[in-house]
Amino acid sequence: MDKKEISSAFIQLQNEIIAALENADGKGKFRKDTWTRTEGGGGITAIIQDGNILEKGGVNFSEVEGPMHEKVGKMLGISATEFYATGVSIVIHPKNPFVPIIHMNIRYFEVNTGEYWFGGGIDLTPHYIVKEQAQYFHRQLKDTCDKTDTAFYSKFKIWADDYFFIPHRNETRGIGGIFFDRLNHESTSFSKEKLFDFVINVGKTFAPVYTHLMKLNAEKPFNEDNKRWQLLRRGRYVEFNLVYDKGTRFGLETGGRIESILMSLPAQASWEYDVTPQKNSPESLTSELLVKGVNWLELS
Amino acid sequence: MDKKEISSAFIQLQNEIIAALENADGKGKFRKDTWTRTEGGGGITAIIQDGNILEKGGVNFSEVEGPMHEKVGKMLGISATEFYATGVSIVIHPKNPFVPIIHMNIRYFEVNTGEYWFGGGIDLTPHYIVKEQAQYFHRQLKDTCDKTDTAFYSKFKIWADDYFFIPHRNETRGIGGIFFDRLNHESTSFSKEKLFDFVINVGKTFAPVYTHLMKLNAEKPFNEDNKRWQLLRRGRYVEFNLVYDKGTRFGLETGGRIESILMSLPAQASWEYDVTPQKNSPESLTSELLVKGVNWLELS
Repeated sequence: MDKKEISSAFIQLQNEIIAALENADGKGKFRKDTWTRTEGGGGITAIIQDGNILEKGGVNFSEVEGPMHEKVGKMLGISATEFYATGVSIVIHPKNPFVPIIHMNIRYFEVNTGEYWFGGGIDLTPHYIVKEQAQYFHRQLKDTCDKTDTAFYSKFKIWADDYFFIPHRNETRGIGGIFFDRLNHESTSFSKEKLFDFVINVGKTFAPVYTHLMKLNAEKPFNEDNKRWQLLRRGRYVEFNLVYDKGTRFGLETGGRIESILMSLPAQASWEYDVTPQKNSPESLTSELLVKGVNWLELS
Repeated sequence: MDKKEISSAFIQLQNEIIAALENADGKGKFRKDTWTRTEGGGGITAIIQDGNILEKGGVNFSEVEGPMHEKVGKMLGISATEFYATGVSIVIHPKNPFVPIIHMNIRYFEVNTGEYWFGGGIDLTPHYIVKEQAQYFHRQLKDTCDKTDTAFYSKFKIWADDYFFIPHRNETRGIGGIFFDRLNHESTSFSKEKLFDFVINVGKTFAPVYTHLMKLNAEKPFNEDNKRWQLLRRGRYVEFNLVYDKGTRFGLETGGRIESILMSLPAQASWEYDVTPQKNSPESLTSELLVKGVNWLELS
């Protein structure tokens, strides 16, 4: 299967997700910027700001290609002279603290020596964890994974726990989800077509799941304490993205389009010195669940 | 001269600076937390939040020692088994957008093979650059440097331009200042005592300079546009500190006390997509000056 088939499907997915989010938001409209990259390729960055429910977010498509820099080849452990990469990346920060932050990414990479792989993931960062919703989220991801391989969910769930982790805080970014990388015929025994179907299924899981969570929570009343907590949790999101997120750091180091990369940062975030939530408060109960290895499917 | 002489002087300096800032602020009081480090040493973190003029900041002292980790030795390019490090670190975020953000650090480091050095710096990040104040700031730093060596200022000013730079934004963090590292007898031909005097002089420059800038600007009226710009500039400050600042990244990677390290982050920061200030606006005039190599002493 050709890379153009993949990138076309990614563009279509971007448009479907934009439509679903605009429809669920009811007010916000995505602004689309098309950009090109000197060395080859470009992208379509779609940003929403100040919607009804969505405060700030991006649904970005990119398709870049060109000479493979030595540094990048070294980082990836491959020796090739030309690369091609296409993907869809999403981060959404809602206004209401009871609506979770969400992130989704699917990507395809190939080099001129014939090697290729798919990668991606979805993870959810609720400011306040609602166990039923966490269960729902992971259940949907498991259903999506199971369509391709019943071993995928548990493997990719652990991968997400490890990836979306903030070592200096010793806490997970949120309730995790799935994360996977370097999926190809060699690593999975599945055909390229089957793996393509898998990542498209992951991408198609995003809109119904997130719009459902928007509807469930967007009307909930919130107070100043809730807002304060949301801004602090967003501070942690900023810490993760700027210090650890490989995609972000890779983009910053290789001269990617900054405004597209940093669309993941919230409209507002805050830091206070040494905050410890009161025992048994909703904030404290959420903090206690920000650990690896929680079985969200069977949480009691 | 003994390390204890140095750390005592640093503690005294911390207290002098705290007193001067509390006096200039008129309302805010520093909260002091003493902490210890499992492997040896500890510190005194002093944080101010929600003062009259100062919104959030820290004046931190630390004195840590113990076995030198291989990774750290490699980073520093030295082979020793034990280290000792003491320093004072300051970051202050004011409320009023017309008061600049300031950072100061002085530090002393030695290892059990006899090697030692001093390092540090001061840099200023005005949300709005006022040329006379930029000149005043650099003039004070030059005067302080000149007491030890008339070659220091121009050398350390360039070093600050290079250090306090955000490559992915292609802009400096602010108007720079001075930055220096690895000052010892070998690198400067000055005695250890003389270099100690220099870093203490740098430390003593902080309070009069910053309280002067507080007084000049704290009463200036500001509007929502000014506040919005301040939050965006703080976003850049967060980007610099989390992505590039060596002290911050070193602290995060080596398991330093997180709340002390991240005191440098503002109470609130914001990110908006693709903001370009209007031509000839104060915001645009400030942005245009965020470049390396400006001669602030003779700016017309």
